[in-house]
Amino acid sequence: MIRSFNPPVRTLMGPGPSDVSPRVLAAMARPTIGHLDPKFIQMMDEIKQLLKYAFQTENELTMPVSAPGSAGMEACFVNLVESGDKVIVCQNGVFGGRMKENVERFGGEAIMVQDEWGAPVDITKVKAALEANEGVKAVAFVHAETSTGVCSDAKAICALAREYGCLSIVDAVTSLGGSELRVDEWGIDAIYSGTQKCLSAPPGISPVSFSKRATDVIQSRKTPVPSWFLDKNLVMGYWGGGAKRAYHHTAPVNTLYALHEALVMLQDEGLENAWARHAKHHRALKAGLESMGLELLVDENCRLSQLNSVVIPEGVDDAAIRGQLLSDYSLEIGAGLGTLAGKTWRIGLMGSACTQRNVMLCLTALENALVAQGASVKTGVAGAAATAVYS
Amino acid sequence: MIRSFNPPVRTLMGPGPSDVSPRVLAAMARPTIGHLDPKFIQMMDEIKQLLKYAFQTENELTMPVSAPGSAGMEACFVNLVESGDKVIVCQNGVFGGRMKENVERFGGEAIMVQDEWGAPVDITKVKAALEANEGVKAVAFVHAETSTGVCSDAKAICALAREYGCLSIVDAVTSLGGSELRVDEWGIDAIYSGTQKCLSAPPGISPVSFSKRATDVIQSRKTPVPSWFLDKNLVMGYWGGGAKRAYHHTAPVNTLYALHEALVMLQDEGLENAWARHAKHHRALKAGLESMGLELLVDENCRLSQLNSVVIPEGVDDAAIRGQLLSDYSLEIGAGLGTLAGKTWRIGLMGSACTQRNVMLCLTALENALVAQGASVKTGVAGAAATAVYS
Repeated sequence: MIRSFNPPVRTLMGPGPSDVSPRVLAAMARPTIGHLDPKFIQMMDEIKQLLKYAFQTENELTMPVSAPGSAGMEACFVNLVESGDKVIVCQNGVFGGRMKENVERFGGEAIMVQDEWGAPVDITKVKAALEANEGVKAVAFVHAETSTGVCSDAKAICALAREYGCLSIVDAVTSLGGSELRVDEWGIDAIYSGTQKCLSAPPGISPVSFSKRATDVIQSRKTPVPSWFLDKNLVMGYWGGGAKRAYHHTAPVNTLYALHEALVMLQDEGLENAWARHAKHHRALKAGLESMGLELLVDENCRLSQLNSVVIPEGVDDAAIRGQLLSDYSLEIGAGLGTLAGKTWRIGLMGSACTQRNVMLCLTALENALVAQGASVKTGVAGAAATAVYS
Repeated sequence: MIRSFNPPVRTLMGPGPSDVSPRVLAAMARPTIGHLDPKFIQMMDEIKQLLKYAFQTENELTMPVSAPGSAGMEACFVNLVESGDKVIVCQNGVFGGRMKENVERFGGEAIMVQDEWGAPVDITKVKAALEANEGVKAVAFVHAETSTGVCSDAKAICALAREYGCLSIVDAVTSLGGSELRVDEWGIDAIYSGTQKCLSAPPGISPVSFSKRATDVIQSRKTPVPSWFLDKNLVMGYWGGGAKRAYHHTAPVNTLYALHEALVMLQDEGLENAWARHAKHHRALKAGLESMGLELLVDENCRLSQLNSVVIPEGVDDAAIRGQLLSDYSLEIGAGLGTLAGKTWRIGLMGSACTQRNVMLCLTALENALVAQGASVKTGVAGAAATAVYS
């Protein structure tokens, strides 16, 4: 016989999910109501309004996809890409590779622009690819690469795409709520995110937004969208405006309660304040790590605050350290992904997990674990280095 | 400024979501942990084991899709159907039509077998379609049509499909946990369900199961699955056996806590007991409704216990009655769907909502609402009629 599951209480400083506030967990446990209940429809409208604020957009087609970020990515590509379409895909980490998979599975041609993992997208390469290829439909890139912690210049890439008459498709899974992101001002055409990073809602939902230009492209497709579940033409019958909503699928009611509460918390804090909070705690964490002699993978000028890739010192056992943090401190940090597996740790400072308390805990725990594993790090200095940033 | 959302407390007797037990809501609000946490992976294994029990299968490829039932449907079709494949689709309600959409969007040819809405799939028509068409790959049908409340003979249809060398694809969204369903014994090859019906977990997850035959078909496809998110070849790296799990997408951690708890409750009650409970309360509801002079849409020999389509009496305003039940009793019943809109109500007796208390509440509330709207129903008899079933 299997019994009820009681999870341990972790501190989540990996690449997501991040710590979920008790406020959000409590919201999630409120009584389930119907997905066509008039009260639920009012809440849907509020979620749309709050998402528009978080994305900084007036896009009518702004809504949460009822599935995780990977499905949000798929929602963008499956609606916009038709067989034979050329899409420039910038890859500088794991998630650019996933974009390529998406383009190809929907019959498109992915023109790859490769950059090193840990480096941002090189805009001169994107320009060269646009010059070299006729009839490119879209430029796709990852704003904040969760696999490396690098931030690319979304504003510049989107402006370039528009200059060449292309749509832009942007992965903002890790940036939304944690770094500056301005969908309308930057001219982003299609964007997807996740709830379990800087919004600190539980995983399972992917906020997306499509510009008028992108919506027009979807509505004038030559072929049906090769997905029923993600077809925006259908989903909008349920998530679109007006009191009358057509049933499409059963919305994940309680998960949307949680997202609503997390977005209310973001609204109450203020978007710019949230960005600044992520930057502040990042500076403290960085000061502490560097004082120990640890190195960050990504250059300072393109480094994300919310996802810190730390180079694992020579001779240190990656899994042993992460195991010790988990067993001794119930602290989760992330492993490296793809080509960075075994070479980096990923320390998240996302949403509700982005606090002074967590910065201090992480520095202490990591120092102790490294010392226990016989690594040569400078001890007894990280706390003061981080504290100096706060004072 | 938008404030926290506090939903009303409803009694959910529509077509789903159904009432979620406080036990399940409490489980959902437990602290979020990582989707690669060793404790989480243990819980995933328990969910697989519990789902195998619920489906009555030993299928290795049994798991919850991280999205609602519609995505579970899509997971079955997108993995099994390739361009040019012929699929017999039986339609006797809304969801057969959705199956057709799925087949066609993945480039298949849907050979339709039509039956009246409210009638079960006619197996002689299925046989005729199998005789008339060469090289049919699969027969797809809805076991329990949520739009009408009819149950089709899944055992017989699957046996027939197998006789003709075809796979079977079965929609069990409304049957799982509420009516007899035996995946292995009946030879079902691909099946999908939802969590928000007779399992009474919140919506957002779709349990699926694939037989060895179906898994072989997926693994020997000529073309890649036209979905990255739903590609079972990839998802199994995360949900497959073994201690080492490859990251595919971020699982909906808290929603899976809820599903786990709901499945533990089903295990504790016993599957056959759950089926019997649904049948018992259905008999009481039916007795009460018929004593009032109301009529059920579906014939007794193929009627579902958990979804009761009630014919709206001549001259009665559908929406007014449902609105009154909601405002006066906070009771949700469902509207008719598709061609049955305005002609039927759908009264659910699903999972945790399938109780004597709810049967009595529904009969009382419906009688009062009908009387208030001036409908000619027999009053003062329903309670006794239902009670007689229980005694």
